[in-house]
Amino acid sequence: MKNRIYCIDQNNKELVDALAGALDGQSSEVEYRRFPDGESYLRVTESCEGVNAIVVCSLQHPDEKILPLLFLADTLKELGAASVGLVAPYLCYMRQDIRFKPGETLSSKTFANLISQKFDWLVTVDPRLHRYNSLDEVYSIPSRVVSSATAIAAWIKNQVEKPLLIGPDSESDQWLSEISNLSEIPYLCLEKKRSGDRDVQVSSDELAQWNGFNPILIDDIISSGHTMLETIKYLQQAGMNAPLCIGIHALFDEQTYQLLQGSGAKVITCNTVNHHSNKIDINSAIVAQIAGIKDQMAANKSDD
Amino acid sequence: MKNRIYCIDQNNKELVDALAGALDGQSSEVEYRRFPDGESYLRVTESCEGVNAIVVCSLQHPDEKILPLLFLADTLKELGAASVGLVAPYLCYMRQDIRFKPGETLSSKTFANLISQKFDWLVTVDPRLHRYNSLDEVYSIPSRVVSSATAIAAWIKNQVEKPLLIGPDSESDQWLSEISNLSEIPYLCLEKKRSGDRDVQVSSDELAQWNGFNPILIDDIISSGHTMLETIKYLQQAGMNAPLCIGIHALFDEQTYQLLQGSGAKVITCNTVNHHSNKIDINSAIVAQIAGIKDQMAANKSDD
Repeated sequence: MKNRIYCIDQNNKELVDALAGALDGQSSEVEYRRFPDGESYLRVTESCEGVNAIVVCSLQHPDEKILPLLFLADTLKELGAASVGLVAPYLCYMRQDIRFKPGETLSSKTFANLISQKFDWLVTVDPRLHRYNSLDEVYSIPSRVVSSATAIAAWIKNQVEKPLLIGPDSESDQWLSEISNLSEIPYLCLEKKRSGDRDVQVSSDELAQWNGFNPILIDDIISSGHTMLETIKYLQQAGMNAPLCIGIHALFDEQTYQLLQGSGAKVITCNTVNHHSNKIDINSAIVAQIAGIKDQMAANKSDD
Repeated sequence: MKNRIYCIDQNNKELVDALAGALDGQSSEVEYRRFPDGESYLRVTESCEGVNAIVVCSLQHPDEKILPLLFLADTLKELGAASVGLVAPYLCYMRQDIRFKPGETLSSKTFANLISQKFDWLVTVDPRLHRYNSLDEVYSIPSRVVSSATAIAAWIKNQVEKPLLIGPDSESDQWLSEISNLSEIPYLCLEKKRSGDRDVQVSSDELAQWNGFNPILIDDIISSGHTMLETIKYLQQAGMNAPLCIGIHALFDEQTYQLLQGSGAKVITCNTVNHHSNKIDINSAIVAQIAGIKDQMAANKSDD
């Protein structure tokens, strides 16, 4: 059955082309624009009858994307697509999974329900699974999670001499220990001491023995950059080489990005969210998971 | 049972307060903000257990509003509200109700389904029912349509001496004939001749006999203002007084508004979409329809 790849946002074009090539598919034009009153207009320009439709949409700034995305899913189904899957390299609304205060909205649940109603499967890269153990707890459709660890480990091995992975705190441990295991790059976890809400100190007694190594800091999303900036300062004071900061999803605002660059560190990201810091290509890992989920769904179907 | 009135957007505050007063209800605070990455945070600050919740949200620029609106509806239901209704003084996505070109999205259908899933009833003001005869063809929940005609007719009778309703074309006939019937204000329909896509000419042989009257042009939404500007020019050349332009929903962009003002016409609107041209109060008409739909729903319930 034919694979057809769709996107609304031209920022996803690179992945659309990669998928079209790798999945023996074809990218298919979507005409999309906003009317002056803010409503969306969308048109699928070629027949999609009987195709396996794959919609690519990275979900940073999701509020303005959700309606066109649901319009596209409905239109493809109405026009006869056999299945409609969603590839969201960055998946939004994973944060609010419990009510921290009474009356808070469980946005992760409402959002997951909307997507699960309209799409047949979901592939994403390293979602922020805080209190959820798996996407299955909130998404009712089959899903696959792409891990960025292999691509990050390979990139470091190719690009950095004498690398040393540095974890600023135990929260970053999940990313760093996996990459260290995959790559056999040494890994050092600093101690993070909070003396106030924004006053963070990091330290390690073992740092001296790693003199001459190139420190690498990693986080899934670099939000305020506060912990990273503090860690960079500490490493500089300890006489280490200028560090490399790797973010999985380039979700920092431009100010945080400039602050990090200005600190003497180099900042790079995976290409899940379009940004000029993108250096680590995650597209082939996404292709592999899509192939996997499609095989699984075909197998499930023949079991019926 | 208690009525509680909610809104996310402070632009709806005036109607929230009007409803709270008229429905013997209480407005209830919603904490709403956007995170820097564009996700919405929302919190209902007081218990809503067992209340009849009424959410007020005028739906111009709907794409960025839909997620917080659905989050609010889900949260109110999860926290025990007995019912959740939506008052949308302006209702969006009524335009794309058929595929004019193959592959176009039927946005009116997808949007109506989302709203119908999350809300128990809907009240709106003069929606653009083009090819639909009734909201029931697309919304599966009970709905009531508020007509602005009574409020507009009353406003004109109070504010304008010797008024003359002018219809620039047969499309505007639906609004104008109703207002004319309600108010006994005379009504003249011009002939609209299109010699190209943007080249519109209007005329009437009867205009001369209405010298000294104050012409009033009315449309539901003043989009480009093109037909209205052409009509204003024609009336000026015919030596008529400066016209008054009434739009039901203040959806024009600022440039169109300035063009109309600059033409010598006065522009006013109903208060369905917050704008400095709002002069005709529609809130009491909305209150009446809400009371009606709640009575109807209570009656349906006791029939069960």
